[in-house]
Amino acid sequence: MKHLPLAKRMRGMEQSIIREILKITKRPDIISFAGGLPAPELFPIKEFTEALADTMKEDPIGSLQYDVTEGYPPLKEFLAGWLTKQGLPCTADHIMLTNGSQQALDLIGKAFLDPQDRVVVENPTYLGAVQAFNAYQARYVSVPMDEEGVKIPEFKKAIATPRTKFVYLVPTFQNPSGITMSRQRREEVVKAAQARKKIIIEDDPYGYLRYRGRSQPSLYALAQGEGVIYLSTFSKILSPGIRLGFVVAKPENLQPLILTKQAADLQPNSLLQRAVYRYAKAGHLESHIPKIIASYKQRSEVMRQAIRTHFPSSIRWVDAEGGMFIWCELPKKVSASKLFPKAIEQKVAYVTGSVFHPNGGGDHTLRLNFTNSSEEQIEEGIKRLGKVFEAALG
Amino acid sequence: MKHLPLAKRMRGMEQSIIREILKITKRPDIISFAGGLPAPELFPIKEFTEALADTMKEDPIGSLQYDVTEGYPPLKEFLAGWLTKQGLPCTADHIMLTNGSQQALDLIGKAFLDPQDRVVVENPTYLGAVQAFNAYQARYVSVPMDEEGVKIPEFKKAIATPRTKFVYLVPTFQNPSGITMSRQRREEVVKAAQARKKIIIEDDPYGYLRYRGRSQPSLYALAQGEGVIYLSTFSKILSPGIRLGFVVAKPENLQPLILTKQAADLQPNSLLQRAVYRYAKAGHLESHIPKIIASYKQRSEVMRQAIRTHFPSSIRWVDAEGGMFIWCELPKKVSASKLFPKAIEQKVAYVTGSVFHPNGGGDHTLRLNFTNSSEEQIEEGIKRLGKVFEAALG
Repeated sequence: MKHLPLAKRMRGMEQSIIREILKITKRPDIISFAGGLPAPELFPIKEFTEALADTMKEDPIGSLQYDVTEGYPPLKEFLAGWLTKQGLPCTADHIMLTNGSQQALDLIGKAFLDPQDRVVVENPTYLGAVQAFNAYQARYVSVPMDEEGVKIPEFKKAIATPRTKFVYLVPTFQNPSGITMSRQRREEVVKAAQARKKIIIEDDPYGYLRYRGRSQPSLYALAQGEGVIYLSTFSKILSPGIRLGFVVAKPENLQPLILTKQAADLQPNSLLQRAVYRYAKAGHLESHIPKIIASYKQRSEVMRQAIRTHFPSSIRWVDAEGGMFIWCELPKKVSASKLFPKAIEQKVAYVTGSVFHPNGGGDHTLRLNFTNSSEEQIEEGIKRLGKVFEAALG
Repeated sequence: MKHLPLAKRMRGMEQSIIREILKITKRPDIISFAGGLPAPELFPIKEFTEALADTMKEDPIGSLQYDVTEGYPPLKEFLAGWLTKQGLPCTADHIMLTNGSQQALDLIGKAFLDPQDRVVVENPTYLGAVQAFNAYQARYVSVPMDEEGVKIPEFKKAIATPRTKFVYLVPTFQNPSGITMSRQRREEVVKAAQARKKIIIEDDPYGYLRYRGRSQPSLYALAQGEGVIYLSTFSKILSPGIRLGFVVAKPENLQPLILTKQAADLQPNSLLQRAVYRYAKAGHLESHIPKIIASYKQRSEVMRQAIRTHFPSSIRWVDAEGGMFIWCELPKKVSASKLFPKAIEQKVAYVTGSVFHPNGGGDHTLRLNFTNSSEEQIEEGIKRLGKVFEAALG
């Protein structure tokens, strides 16, 4: 009995290709644009260390004891106020805490997906969501995008597909494409989904990191919460290692997620919820986010400028207004997967875009991250990549 | 669209009855033996605060950044050494970290259970495991126990049931019954499961809390790891609020769990894994566990003595050698559920035993916790309960 007889759902699950790529690209001599890691030098170490110390001083027992499943009430209260101020009106009753957004995706899949159910997604879409939903044997209806987000006729057709259970969208600085859905598309998407009574999962890990342009209302705000489950996380604005994300939804949509969270791991971390609450209440979230924005904005400018200088003009790329990624499309005949070993030879790495296409295709695309490299590394790495692409497109 | 169309698996899931009971019993005027909370006054606040501070000083970036799915390597190394010393020989490759044991139960259900698969369990069994496996539409084959654990002829018959996927056992100070499986039964259980090629899930949250009697080898050790997945947690020996448990298994059995963990929430908490590592490496785990044992031993003695004094002699109860619970059986005609409101009237609470019987029955049983009440509360609470039982048994 070397191996256990696995559940059928495990057939759709495989080691994350990205995590495999990241292992290669951890070599210190490689300039890696492959990951999606925040810049560690921006972590608010001093302020968070103080928040931790205060927490252990003021509420050590609460921090170390069991707690409620839906999350630490003062943190929920804080989030409700903060989100309302950001244009996402909600109360503490609309909020639950999770282990990063990834757990929210898992709980949503668990609560709502039967095998062979369809999820409508942008094409390309976030790989972590596909991995979470694959565990519940989902199938995908992928909708093409242009620079304003999903195309509406195709979206309407997609949500009419039999067995469509919900829609999963990353409307702002999408991972991987960097595209931000326009105001008009947002309104049309909400209207179409409501007409078909399809819930929208709005995943918004990057929305707080805007470098240029005008901010867009969340789908949750446009729908006044009706039929939208909103996800975000402290991973990109504070720290991913503390594993805290949050869900905003009408209580009747939140309840099944709280139930699945209870069976999955009882509750979020008591101690770190309290530390984040103290950190945020002291105003550090508000003072820290502009620092992240300033630094990432600069890196994104350097990458954009380097791409303009070093990439062949036949490569199309998305001039994202925020977030962590720049998305590139090579000419259709060129394979980003086949070029990957050549890039590694030149000691520079990216993620091949095909992994973000759940129904196949996209082999001529690739994703570049600019938040985990210095400006010098970005300049040098893009120059090297430019040579690889020049040679291939020659 | 008030409610989402839930997945079929949600039909088997309900709000934990225990968590509902706990809400009632949180009233400060009630002496509650209902929960399963550790004594907060025993939390090693000073030592853990220091470990946290050291961690943020020595490895702030590692603590706040993303990390590997299977767990922080130095903590896995420490655990391998510690467990080997405790008689559970393993290496770091056999270990993964989870969000408490509850997540391990969820990942096991997810990786191995198809709808209608059978899980062989002790009767009564741990409610949290049933809740985790219910999410994957499991069915249960429950095996009666005597004071030595599951009865072997019934166990052999149970594992021969069609579609049995694995066996779930809490062999030491079982929750809820307090029963510890004898050495001979352990050997017979391992032999029978191996002969049928059925994996054993050995859940051991309490094994490190022995107050009397001789310790028993783990099923994992007896099987030399072959066909056993061992679970334990820092919840009972350090803190449940930090949500850290661990799985020990042969790498080929661990791999599917790592894969499901990745899709479920990427990784365990970077910061708290490092803090627990520093805490443990400094020797605090070894010096703290005897303090917990001394205090719980005393409370268990007080409860046992009070039961002897105040309970009608027709009530049978299990004289557990460790753990957190004393299990009581009323005469079969008496319902512990029906007596519950009468106990609440007397401002004392327990958990009705029926919730631990996944296939029904056990309404004449109940579980008492002694780790979250003072000696005075235990004496007074058992006296009140004795009166309730006296009145009912006439």
